[in-house]
Amino acid sequence: MSVTAAKGFTAAGIAAGIKENGNPDLALVVNNGPRRAAAGVFTSNRVKAAPVLWSEQVLRGGEVSAVVLNSGGANACTGPQGFQDTHATAEKVAAVLNQGGPEDHSAGEIAVASTGLIGLLLPMDKVLAGVEKAAGELSAHGGEKAAIAIKTTDSVHKTAVAEGEGWTVGGMAKGAGMLAPGLATMLVVLTTDADLESATLDKALRDATRQTFDRVDSDGCMSTNDTVLLLASGASEITPRYEEFADAVRTVCDDLARQLIGDAEGASKDIRIEVINAATEDDAVEVGRSIARNNLLKCAIHGEDPNWGRVLSAIGTTRAAFEPDALNVAINGIWVCRGGSVGEDRELVDMRYREVKITADLSAGSESAVIWANDLTADYVHENSAYSS
Amino acid sequence: MSVTAAKGFTAAGIAAGIKENGNPDLALVVNNGPRRAAAGVFTSNRVKAAPVLWSEQVLRGGEVSAVVLNSGGANACTGPQGFQDTHATAEKVAAVLNQGGPEDHSAGEIAVASTGLIGLLLPMDKVLAGVEKAAGELSAHGGEKAAIAIKTTDSVHKTAVAEGEGWTVGGMAKGAGMLAPGLATMLVVLTTDADLESATLDKALRDATRQTFDRVDSDGCMSTNDTVLLLASGASEITPRYEEFADAVRTVCDDLARQLIGDAEGASKDIRIEVINAATEDDAVEVGRSIARNNLLKCAIHGEDPNWGRVLSAIGTTRAAFEPDALNVAINGIWVCRGGSVGEDRELVDMRYREVKITADLSAGSESAVIWANDLTADYVHENSAYSS
Repeated sequence: MSVTAAKGFTAAGIAAGIKENGNPDLALVVNNGPRRAAAGVFTSNRVKAAPVLWSEQVLRGGEVSAVVLNSGGANACTGPQGFQDTHATAEKVAAVLNQGGPEDHSAGEIAVASTGLIGLLLPMDKVLAGVEKAAGELSAHGGEKAAIAIKTTDSVHKTAVAEGEGWTVGGMAKGAGMLAPGLATMLVVLTTDADLESATLDKALRDATRQTFDRVDSDGCMSTNDTVLLLASGASEITPRYEEFADAVRTVCDDLARQLIGDAEGASKDIRIEVINAATEDDAVEVGRSIARNNLLKCAIHGEDPNWGRVLSAIGTTRAAFEPDALNVAINGIWVCRGGSVGEDRELVDMRYREVKITADLSAGSESAVIWANDLTADYVHENSAYSS
Repeated sequence: MSVTAAKGFTAAGIAAGIKENGNPDLALVVNNGPRRAAAGVFTSNRVKAAPVLWSEQVLRGGEVSAVVLNSGGANACTGPQGFQDTHATAEKVAAVLNQGGPEDHSAGEIAVASTGLIGLLLPMDKVLAGVEKAAGELSAHGGEKAAIAIKTTDSVHKTAVAEGEGWTVGGMAKGAGMLAPGLATMLVVLTTDADLESATLDKALRDATRQTFDRVDSDGCMSTNDTVLLLASGASEITPRYEEFADAVRTVCDDLARQLIGDAEGASKDIRIEVINAATEDDAVEVGRSIARNNLLKCAIHGEDPNWGRVLSAIGTTRAAFEPDALNVAINGIWVCRGGSVGEDRELVDMRYREVKITADLSAGSESAVIWANDLTADYVHENSAYSS
């Protein structure tokens, strides 16, 4: 499972002491080749953390030999010192990986990812010592430990895998809050032993994230640190057909995205919003996102109240093509709104289970999209009002 | 105070039995002239309640002789029957006002406004009997009772007044949730005895709402029923200078908007977000709104946590002109973020009081804007998860 499911990768997860509670907080993933092609997708937030600025630069080269990730601090909004710290971390990884072997790791091919509180410098003595410790524990079975070390408020670690014919895609993710489009405080590392060029990896990764992570909208907040990386070792010596590979990457991303929603901070419901009969896919996504972000609706779902008026209210704020009196809305299969007005009896809607399905029929075309969201709960407020203090 | 502060107006507020708890739920405001010029601003939500569709049509004529408002039901998403009900209500108001006098009221000059739950038809027998009862209680001192009758989850009724030289602008408002740009589940009626054309009223009202109600963003949710009306009786026989009049309208709107924020459902903090040194006013508003809608920040403010990283995160999602490393943020006067990084000690920020001031300095120009928001609390979740069930 995880990032060591594919051949050619080793990983480790250790406690470096960045987190005050002593929990694991530093992960290292190394691509042992023979190939090092890579692709990455980063937050679209214009306020980007130092490791995002660094890793974007690394990915421009199309090759990544290792990824170092830490929880316990986002290294965001930390100025020039924060960027120097990221650079120093990459240099340290290259140095320890080169010890006792050929000097084939350079900092310029080491991606860095951080997650945790914004506005704090990392304790670099602990980070650098942690890198050394992690390098000593690298193992072809280290994927699980790496996934555990990147948790912040996650209640469980998240891994997934998809098998091709003779090749594998595996991955790990962390994220439990600030889940929103353009990704989230979400760190994801995917690995594969397929033998592919970075341009192919990039296309497969962008196609997958657009339909998976980008359609997860737990709380409408977009982070400064979101990073999704895909590393290919080529160790299987197989070059799969693009469609097969892209499908496997999407499967792993979808699996991880669902795990993120299922573990969102303080949530009691996972809401699957399907927008159907839209004029365009963009319309479907815009409408789905508007519904996903409506705090009043999110509260109603928490209260198991099939309040379809709030769905219509949310649809009405979009620019999508629709006529108000042609809108239909189903909640858990009951069409409580038909023709923009009262439909089936709302008392028929059973909302006892964690998953709630909202279907919004725009009657304007044949495109569709699914957006995942969470309800809004008192627990969410409690977790996020006490997080840094 | 309220809508009867200006000469030429009578009003009433009564319990028609629309609300099951027997509280006042129907208000009538009558313009006794000699003039009937009027202007209106309505929700920009594309899903509009029947009374909004009706009143938009009425306002096209530029004259309003009376406004009937009900709480206890929004008459939104109620199809053709809902629109017929609104029409019948206006006809009833015209009929009872014409009783025993010259037949100078026509339904086409009667504005209708409703607030309450979406998706329910109004109990028309009660509404029509209520109109009759309200007409019998019309009084030049009825403004207060009218303001009380339009409350839904409001904890207090809201009125305001501004005096010119020999003329007056007064008003009432209701709204405690779904407060968002393009107005809110917000009903506002303003009256004046100034003698002005409807085009002048329209300009003054749009200028005022743009800078007041449109910049109140309690929970990011935009309603189907928002209505702001301005009626002029001309009873003072004075035509004030435009600037003086517009200033008075803005003063009353600003006063009422602040009362709405101060009474927002479940809120424990009023957040004044001032964006300064923006390249354009639009940029300042976009950034202010993005900060106002960030659930993670709203939770942090609730927890009295000066979490400026979440402010930067919100700014970063906008298209406004700025450089990340030139952003400065103050919370209650302490510049906790300077140059996009750590500034003054966050321990210096005192957040014990209800009002919290966030200043976001974009260092990109000289424009500014103020947006008002509320924090996100467990009480908000409770109120809105149990509202209809």
